[in-house]
Amino acid sequence: MLSDNPGFSKRPRVVIIGAGFGGLTAAITLRKAPVDVTLLDQHNYHLFQPLLYQVATAGLSPAQIASPIRRIVARQKNVTVLMDKVVDIDPLQHEVVTATRRLPFDYLIVATGARHAYFGNDQWEEFAPGLKQIDEATEIRRRILLAFEKAETATDEAERRRLLTFIVVGGGPTGVEMAGAIAELAHRTLRRDFRHIDPTESRIILIEAGPRVLSAFPESLSQSAAEQLAKLGVTVSTGAAVTGVDATGIDLKDGSRIGAGTIIWAAGVTASPAARWLKVDSDRAGRVVVDAMLHPAGLENIFVIGDTATVTDGNGVVAPGIAPAAKQMGHYAARAIITRIAQRPVGPFKYRNYGNLATIGRKSAVADFGSFRLSGFFAWVVWCFAHIWFLIGFRNRIIVFLDWVVAYFSFARGARLITGGED
Amino acid sequence: MLSDNPGFSKRPRVVIIGAGFGGLTAAITLRKAPVDVTLLDQHNYHLFQPLLYQVATAGLSPAQIASPIRRIVARQKNVTVLMDKVVDIDPLQHEVVTATRRLPFDYLIVATGARHAYFGNDQWEEFAPGLKQIDEATEIRRRILLAFEKAETATDEAERRRLLTFIVVGGGPTGVEMAGAIAELAHRTLRRDFRHIDPTESRIILIEAGPRVLSAFPESLSQSAAEQLAKLGVTVSTGAAVTGVDATGIDLKDGSRIGAGTIIWAAGVTASPAARWLKVDSDRAGRVVVDAMLHPAGLENIFVIGDTATVTDGNGVVAPGIAPAAKQMGHYAARAIITRIAQRPVGPFKYRNYGNLATIGRKSAVADFGSFRLSGFFAWVVWCFAHIWFLIGFRNRIIVFLDWVVAYFSFARGARLITGGED
Repeated sequence: MLSDNPGFSKRPRVVIIGAGFGGLTAAITLRKAPVDVTLLDQHNYHLFQPLLYQVATAGLSPAQIASPIRRIVARQKNVTVLMDKVVDIDPLQHEVVTATRRLPFDYLIVATGARHAYFGNDQWEEFAPGLKQIDEATEIRRRILLAFEKAETATDEAERRRLLTFIVVGGGPTGVEMAGAIAELAHRTLRRDFRHIDPTESRIILIEAGPRVLSAFPESLSQSAAEQLAKLGVTVSTGAAVTGVDATGIDLKDGSRIGAGTIIWAAGVTASPAARWLKVDSDRAGRVVVDAMLHPAGLENIFVIGDTATVTDGNGVVAPGIAPAAKQMGHYAARAIITRIAQRPVGPFKYRNYGNLATIGRKSAVADFGSFRLSGFFAWVVWCFAHIWFLIGFRNRIIVFLDWVVAYFSFARGARLITGGED
Repeated sequence: MLSDNPGFSKRPRVVIIGAGFGGLTAAITLRKAPVDVTLLDQHNYHLFQPLLYQVATAGLSPAQIASPIRRIVARQKNVTVLMDKVVDIDPLQHEVVTATRRLPFDYLIVATGARHAYFGNDQWEEFAPGLKQIDEATEIRRRILLAFEKAETATDEAERRRLLTFIVVGGGPTGVEMAGAIAELAHRTLRRDFRHIDPTESRIILIEAGPRVLSAFPESLSQSAAEQLAKLGVTVSTGAAVTGVDATGIDLKDGSRIGAGTIIWAAGVTASPAARWLKVDSDRAGRVVVDAMLHPAGLENIFVIGDTATVTDGNGVVAPGIAPAAKQMGHYAARAIITRIAQRPVGPFKYRNYGNLATIGRKSAVADFGSFRLSGFFAWVVWCFAHIWFLIGFRNRIIVFLDWVVAYFSFARGARLITGGED
């Protein structure tokens, strides 16, 4: 029964850690290669992270943005999927170490992604969860919806105001998307749902330490995003650095304090512990420093890709921490392995920028395609189609599309369930 | 802001505990009545319980079978929804007691439903969870899917066999539906997903203490259900009483033991603690004994309905513990309140039997309409349409319909996510 175990095979063994955009693309690219692939992930599903904020704001269900990894590669016979958690890598013995086994490899692709970072203040996480995993998204959804429920029964006016204040820390795409979606939830979806509170009086505050939101976009699009957020009823505070987070609000560097019932952290990421496992150099955000072939220094059989890596050439960082970059790196690493097995020379990784998108609520977005830029409704249509197109699984695509069509016209957000936790 | 609080109103105050089929129907029936309704539930959603087994077996997402209560009654201005947990009722003071408040009522409708019962063996729950709540359904889904994952990496053949054995205790509609759905998951959906195990070798065992499954149906339909289950690959054991449940299997009265990786409890229900709150008589299953007007003895302003009540007349029990009966009782209680406010006489509750349905997998079912009976594919079509028809929320209806169409032709079960818990 274990005859197809990589350990008994003579074909090169490729282990891929992480079935996100990068790892999954690598596995699929290897589908016809003469290798045995083991795809390891701590979850049994591939998560379409760009839409995770929609789960957190009750627009979509978890299953609509997550596909079982086994289903995706079911017919790809050279892939074995393992649901397991990596605890270490032994680069000299060529083994990946999990709690229960040691997996030998000839080639290793590390695609373990990133976590949100609290810049040394991990105690803030309890009060301001981040948004990287499904369980975090349903927990944030629970907190947002419970805040309205508690406000409905609050007897103290100040407490009610606090409960109806929602703070999103971090003005990158996730923060902008979260703030816009919460504003729509409060100002449109829930408008008629309560008797003692008026959800349209909710305050949604987007806190950004830098001078503008969406700093990875051109300044004109940042400006447009800020205006579109304001139209949705989001208060944007730029140049506001958070110095404290607790159960009832946040403190800012200027000494002011904002009380809030719900605080969401979208302010920064740190890579997974891959650099520590590999005992190699990392940058400030914990990303493994790799060369133009995506190898950490001195480890020619190991590729580090996606958010876990920082690729530099002579001119600085080569690829941003977004899904298309991770997919390109996954594709590159797989092709490099195939090329090396065929004993041909491998060229360096080259990032191709196909554009950058961020959405702001139900009908506006910004899109930067380098040579041209879009904002507003048309950018939102582009955003919708791009996200449905890249969503894995045909069934998910049609159901998400249908959900969006209904939500667009009705403002309903169907997944308004408070689940999990005990209150 | 509290001006529409029932406490300040002179209109009769109706408190409804529970927004299941009975409570929600009562609230909606009161939509034009000159009363102030408070609808209390510990969750923020109405759950379409007949489809909960589909969440437990990864066919549907929680949000597809649950609608936010607030949305359902958003435009019904005389209803205030409260998300709160009842801890007691004071029938003499006419107050409902929650952890944080006392709610006065002129009329009370108790529709708190039922829980699964372990017949005095509550320690079994940990090993054999039941299926009444969304969090239980996602937990069962997690266990079923994890069993396959663990079997895939098991190195011991006996352990692998145990992990691939699924026991459902209880041959009522829920047990039959669960067993059929697990069989389809194992034998069809997951067929190609693993490399070291063959999911089609899974054993699904349905254990029933009585002489036949679906004992509430005519014997010919029980027979048909058993045959349809066998065709799906379910082993049906009737006359098998469970005497022990632990982490690795169950013990039967005949002294035999069956090892299993997943055990699901569908063997019996007990009513919520309403009888204890009201200090009134209950039957063996904990249901409040009510008269033909659905009042517990001596409490003329209190109605107990649905699974929480046992309605008897001279000829025995009047209504079964199914959704249509709960809805009829909810409607009756609301009409009775309206009639009494109009100072007209109230007649007794009469149950109308519109039939009884149970489904067995992807394309068979049994249906008992009294004068005629159906089984097989046509019964399944009836079952599908009945369930989609009664599913609350238009958006949910079309999305569930679409999901089923896709699942019917593809055998895919889209919600195969292992979420929650730490393993």
